[in-house]
Amino acid sequence: MISKTPNAPYYAVIFTSLKVSGANGYETMSDRMVELAKVQPGYLGMESVRDASGMGITTSYWENLESISNWRKNSEHREAQSFGKEKWYSDYKVRICKVERDYSL
Amino acid sequence: MISKTPNAPYYAVIFTSLKVSGANGYETMSDRMVELAKVQPGYLGMESVRDASGMGITTSYWENLESISNWRKNSEHREAQSFGKEKWYSDYKVRICKVERDYSL
Repeated sequence: MISKTPNAPYYAVIFTSLKVSGANGYETMSDRMVELAKVQPGYLGMESVRDASGMGITTSYWENLESISNWRKNSEHREAQSFGKEKWYSDYKVRICKVERDYSL
Repeated sequence: MISKTPNAPYYAVIFTSLKVSGANGYETMSDRMVELAKVQPGYLGMESVRDASGMGITTSYWENLESISNWRKNSEHREAQSFGKEKWYSDYKVRICKVERDYSL
Protein backbone atom coordinates (compact mmCIF):
# COMPACT_ATOMS: atom_id res chain seq x y z
CA MET A 1 0.00 0.00 0.00
CA ILE A 2 3.02 2.28 0.41
CA SER A 3 4.59 2.71 -3.02
CA LYS A 4 8.12 1.42 -3.51
CA THR A 5 9.30 4.44 -5.42
CA PRO A 6 12.88 4.67 -6.76
CA ASN A 7 15.56 6.91 -5.32
CA ALA A 8 14.72 10.61 -5.47
CA PRO A 9 14.43 12.81 -7.41
CA TYR A 10 11.10 11.90 -8.96
CA TYR A 11 7.74 13.68 -9.15
CA ALA A 12 4.53 13.51 -7.14
CA VAL A 13 0.99 14.71 -7.72
CA ILE A 14 -0.95 15.38 -4.51
CA PHE A 15 -4.67 15.30 -5.21
CA THR A 16 -6.75 16.35 -2.21
CA SER A 17 -10.51 16.18 -2.65
CA LEU A 18 -13.86 16.38 -0.91
CA LYS A 19 -16.29 13.92 -2.44
CA VAL A 20 -20.01 14.58 -2.26
CA SER A 21 -22.17 11.82 -0.81
CA GLY A 22 -23.86 9.55 -3.31
CA ALA A 23 -21.45 10.35 -6.14
CA ASN A 24 -22.99 8.14 -8.84
CA GLY A 25 -20.49 6.22 -10.90
CA TYR A 26 -17.54 7.37 -8.84
CA GLU A 27 -16.25 3.99 -7.67
CA THR A 28 -16.24 2.43 -11.12
CA MET A 29 -14.48 5.40 -12.67
CA SER A 30 -12.02 5.68 -9.79
CA ASP A 31 -11.04 2.01 -10.11
CA ARG A 32 -10.65 2.43 -13.86
CA MET A 33 -8.40 5.48 -13.40
CA VAL A 34 -6.13 3.54 -11.02
CA GLU A 35 -5.77 0.75 -13.60
CA LEU A 36 -5.21 3.23 -16.42
CA ALA A 37 -2.63 5.26 -14.49
CA LYS A 38 -0.60 2.12 -13.83
CA VAL A 39 0.06 1.54 -17.52
CA GLN A 40 1.06 5.12 -18.34
CA PRO A 41 4.69 5.78 -19.29
CA GLY A 42 6.61 7.12 -16.31
CA TYR A 43 4.17 5.86 -13.68
CA LEU A 44 5.97 4.93 -10.45
CA GLY A 45 3.21 4.32 -7.91
CA MET A 46 0.10 5.59 -6.19
CA GLU A 47 -1.22 5.87 -2.64
CA SER A 48 -4.84 6.71 -1.89
CA VAL A 49 -6.92 7.16 1.23
CA ARG A 50 -10.47 8.40 1.67
CA ASP A 51 -12.27 8.56 5.00
CA ALA A 52 -15.95 8.22 5.84
CA SER A 53 -16.45 12.01 5.66
CA GLY A 54 -15.52 12.01 1.95
CA MET A 55 -12.11 13.66 2.41
CA GLY A 56 -9.47 11.98 0.30
CA ILE A 57 -5.79 12.30 -0.53
CA THR A 58 -4.33 10.46 -3.52
CA THR A 59 -0.65 10.76 -4.26
CA SER A 60 0.72 9.48 -7.54
CA TYR A 61 4.40 9.25 -8.40
CA TRP A 62 5.98 9.84 -11.79
CA GLU A 63 9.38 9.85 -13.44
CA ASN A 64 9.15 13.39 -14.74
CA LEU A 65 6.86 16.33 -15.51
CA GLU A 66 6.23 15.07 -19.04
CA SER A 67 4.68 11.84 -17.76
CA ILE A 68 2.40 13.87 -15.46
CA SER A 69 1.39 16.15 -18.32
CA ASN A 70 0.64 13.19 -20.59
CA TRP A 71 -1.48 11.52 -17.92
CA ARG A 72 -3.40 14.74 -17.35
CA LYS A 73 -4.16 14.93 -21.07
CA ASN A 74 -5.16 11.26 -21.47
CA SER A 75 -8.62 11.24 -23.06
CA GLU A 76 -10.26 8.80 -20.64
CA HIS A 77 -8.69 10.66 -17.74
CA ARG A 78 -10.01 13.95 -19.11
CA GLU A 79 -13.50 12.51 -19.12
CA ALA A 80 -13.07 11.43 -15.50
CA GLN A 81 -11.80 14.92 -14.63
CA SER A 82 -14.96 16.42 -16.14
CA PHE A 83 -17.20 14.14 -14.11
CA GLY A 84 -15.16 14.99 -11.03
CA LYS A 85 -15.61 18.73 -11.54
CA GLU A 86 -19.29 18.51 -12.37
CA LYS A 87 -20.61 15.78 -10.12
CA TRP A 88 -18.29 14.11 -7.63
CA TYR A 89 -16.20 16.73 -5.85
CA SER A 90 -17.33 19.73 -3.85
CA ASP A 91 -13.70 20.88 -3.74
CA TYR A 92 -10.26 19.68 -4.76
CA LYS A 93 -6.70 20.81 -5.14
CA VAL A 94 -3.89 19.39 -7.27
CA ARG A 95 -0.26 20.01 -6.40
CA ILE A 96 2.59 19.07 -8.74
CA CYS A 97 5.76 18.40 -6.77
CA LYS A 98 9.35 17.36 -7.18
CA VAL A 99 10.27 14.78 -4.54
CA GLU A 100 13.72 15.84 -3.43
CA ARG A 101 14.34 13.11 -0.83
CA ASP A 102 12.51 10.43 1.08
CA TYR A 103 12.98 7.93 3.88
CA SER A 104 11.10 4.99 5.36
CA LEU A 105 10.58 3.18 8.62
CA MET B 1 -10.04 20.86 5.14
CA ILE B 2 -8.11 21.63 1.95
CA SER B 3 -5.25 23.96 2.86
CA LYS B 4 -5.26 27.43 1.37
CA THR B 5 -1.58 27.44 0.54
CA PRO B 6 0.10 30.47 -1.09
CA ASN B 7 1.25 30.61 -4.69
CA ALA B 8 3.89 28.02 -5.58
CA PRO B 9 6.72 27.38 -5.06
CA TYR B 10 6.52 26.10 -1.51
CA TYR B 11 7.34 22.76 0.10
CA ALA B 12 5.34 19.68 1.05
CA VAL B 13 5.97 16.69 3.27
CA ILE B 14 3.99 13.60 2.27
CA PHE B 15 3.75 11.22 5.22
CA THR B 16 2.15 7.89 4.27
CA SER B 17 1.67 5.42 7.12
CA LEU B 18 0.07 2.17 8.16
CA LYS B 19 -1.14 2.38 11.74
CA VAL B 20 -1.43 -0.77 13.83
CA SER B 21 -4.78 -1.42 15.48
CA GLY B 22 -5.09 -0.36 19.11
CA ALA B 23 -2.19 2.11 18.95
CA ASN B 24 -2.28 3.31 22.56
CA GLY B 25 -1.87 7.04 22.98
CA TYR B 26 -1.87 7.71 19.26
CA GLU B 27 -4.89 10.01 19.08
CA THR B 28 -3.73 12.29 21.86
CA MET B 29 -0.23 12.59 20.43
CA SER B 30 -1.50 13.04 16.90
CA ASP B 31 -3.80 15.89 17.97
CA ARG B 32 -0.93 17.48 19.86
CA MET B 33 1.37 17.27 16.85
CA VAL B 34 -1.21 19.00 14.65
CA GLU B 35 -1.47 21.85 17.18
CA LEU B 36 2.30 22.06 17.55
CA ALA B 37 2.96 22.03 13.79
CA LYS B 38 0.59 24.96 13.32
CA VAL B 39 2.74 27.27 15.45
CA GLN B 40 6.05 26.37 13.80
CA PRO B 41 7.79 29.04 11.71
CA GLY B 42 7.13 28.49 8.03
CA TYR B 43 4.03 26.32 8.51
CA LEU B 44 1.53 26.81 5.68
CA GLY B 45 -1.07 24.08 6.18
CA MET B 46 -1.84 20.42 6.65
CA GLU B 47 -4.22 17.84 5.19
CA SER B 48 -4.73 14.44 6.77
CA VAL B 49 -6.85 11.40 6.02
CA ARG B 50 -6.86 7.95 7.58
CA ASP B 51 -9.27 5.18 6.63
CA ALA B 52 -10.70 2.34 8.67
CA SER B 53 -7.91 -0.02 7.57
CA GLY B 54 -5.29 2.18 9.27
CA MET B 55 -3.81 3.56 6.05
CA GLY B 56 -3.16 7.29 6.29
CA ILE B 57 -1.74 10.12 4.27
CA THR B 58 -0.83 13.42 5.90
CA THR B 59 0.52 16.24 3.80
CA SER B 60 1.99 19.29 5.48
CA TYR B 61 3.03 22.45 3.68
CA TRP B 62 5.99 24.66 4.49
CA GLU B 63 7.69 27.82 3.28
CA ASN B 64 11.09 26.22 2.79
CA LEU B 65 13.34 23.27 3.60
CA GLU B 66 14.65 24.96 6.72
CA SER B 67 11.18 25.07 8.28
CA ILE B 68 10.73 21.35 7.52
CA SER B 69 14.10 20.54 9.05
CA ASN B 70 13.33 22.56 12.18
CA TRP B 71 9.98 20.83 12.61
CA ARG B 72 11.60 17.43 12.20
CA LYS B 73 14.08 18.31 14.95
CA ASN B 74 11.50 19.75 17.37
CA SER B 75 11.94 17.89 20.66
CA GLU B 76 8.28 17.05 21.24
CA HIS B 77 7.97 15.99 17.63
CA ARG B 78 11.06 13.78 18.01
CA GLU B 79 9.39 12.05 20.92
CA ALA B 80 6.28 11.45 18.80
CA GLN B 81 8.47 10.10 15.98
CA SER B 82 10.01 7.59 18.41
CA PHE B 83 6.59 6.38 19.56
CA GLY B 84 5.55 6.13 15.94
CA LYS B 85 8.52 3.95 15.01
CA GLU B 86 8.26 1.74 18.06
CA LYS B 87 4.54 1.37 18.65
CA TRP B 88 2.10 2.95 16.24
CA TYR B 89 3.17 2.31 12.66
CA SER B 90 3.84 -0.99 10.92
CA ASP B 91 5.25 0.97 8.00
CA TYR B 92 5.64 4.55 6.83
CA LYS B 93 7.36 6.70 4.25
CA VAL B 94 8.21 10.38 4.30
CA ARG B 95 8.73 12.32 1.09
CA ILE B 96 10.10 15.88 1.04
CA CYS B 97 8.86 17.74 -2.01
CA LYS B 98 9.00 21.10 -3.71
CA VAL B 99 5.53 22.10 -4.90
CA GLU B 100 6.16 23.58 -8.33
CA ARG B 101 2.58 24.44 -9.23
CA ASP B 102 -0.98 23.80 -8.12
CA TYR B 103 -4.57 24.37 -9.17
CA SER B 104 -8.01 24.00 -7.64
CA LEU B 105 -11.60 23.28 -8.58
